Amino acid sequence: METQTATTTDQLFISTDAMLAHWQGHRNLTRRVIEAFPEDKLFNHSIGGMRPFAELAMELIDIAAPGVEGLATGKWEKIEEFDHTKTMPKTKEGLLELWDKVTVTIDSVWPKISSERFQKVESAFGQYEYPNYASLLYFVDNEIHHRAQGYVYLRSLGIQPPFFWER
Amino acid sequence: METQTATTTDQLFISTDAMLAHWQGHRNLTRRVIEAFPEDKLFNHSIGGMRPFAELAMELIDIAAPGVEGLATGKWEKIEEFDHTKTMPKTKEGLLELWDKVTVTIDSVWPKISSERFQKVESAFGQYEYPNYASLLYFVDNEIHHRAQGYVYLRSLGIQPPFFWER
Repeated sequence: METQTATTTDQLFISTDAMLAHWQGHRNLTRRVIEAFPEDKLFNHSIGGMRPFAELAMELIDIAAPGVEGLATGKWEKIEEFDHTKTMPKTKEGLLELWDKVTVTIDSVWPKISSERFQKVESAFGQYEYPNYASLLYFVDNEIHHRAQGYVYLRSLGIQPPFFWER
Repeated sequence: METQTATTTDQLFISTDAMLAHWQGHRNLTRRVIEAFPEDKLFNHSIGGMRPFAELAMELIDIAAPGVEGLATGKWEKIEEFDHTKTMPKTKEGLLELWDKVTVTIDSVWPKISSERFQKVESAFGQYEYPNYASLLYFVDNEIHHRAQGYVYLRSLGIQPPFFWER
């Protein structure tokens, strides 16, 4: 990943407003992948020893909620309500409810995050130091990656996943 | 996806330089996923009726090569050498050779693409009209998505895929 901070000569690739729409578009698609699973398969279907999709979705919740707070404040701390080591909904409805809470949180916190914050180099959740834009891209990439596992799970169950390009 | 073009009030999320590093980092990881497949499984292993990983990788080549040219010039035309409907290498080595050609092409063409080009709304390859930054993000997202299928294929074969965070 690129580790330099922005300078005044940096050319804009994507704006902060557009990046919010991009992220929420992906989250909207992942929500529909959760919905596409039969209730039991959401919690117990697996291939090659990998985690069921409910656990992957819970990991995404556990990154996104404290992640957007970290981007805004520089405090990278887990949030108990969304902590996958402490909270694991037992139903699809419970999982979607947490998902939707995070959606609201992201929309409300995002406008407080300046362009300078996204260029700042920090250690997100105590990991390696990267510019914050790279950490957010990593969160989104990780979501696409795990959601694609969900696509394979659905296909292996004979279920048509949502179209990838519909956000 | 966000469909508005940039204005002078747009705040930088990620610069064009950093986006190139991000894209090539993903392509470097995908290259290692290709390498991780046994030669025969690369061309014939499948789950749920989905394409073998060699075909997915060829699709990515077929998007990236003419894609970077389209971003630079506004001409969105397939390139015969990389067209997956006309070219399909029969060996892992042949596939990696095409992959590496595209890597060089991207590095050489990228500096010619202005920030304004990335904000311009166009119909990439005759699809829906989006700003060019959204089309490139779509190319990268599509790569992450298909590569993750490759991760599941490898896991189902008992093979440890490369670490997702190593680019």
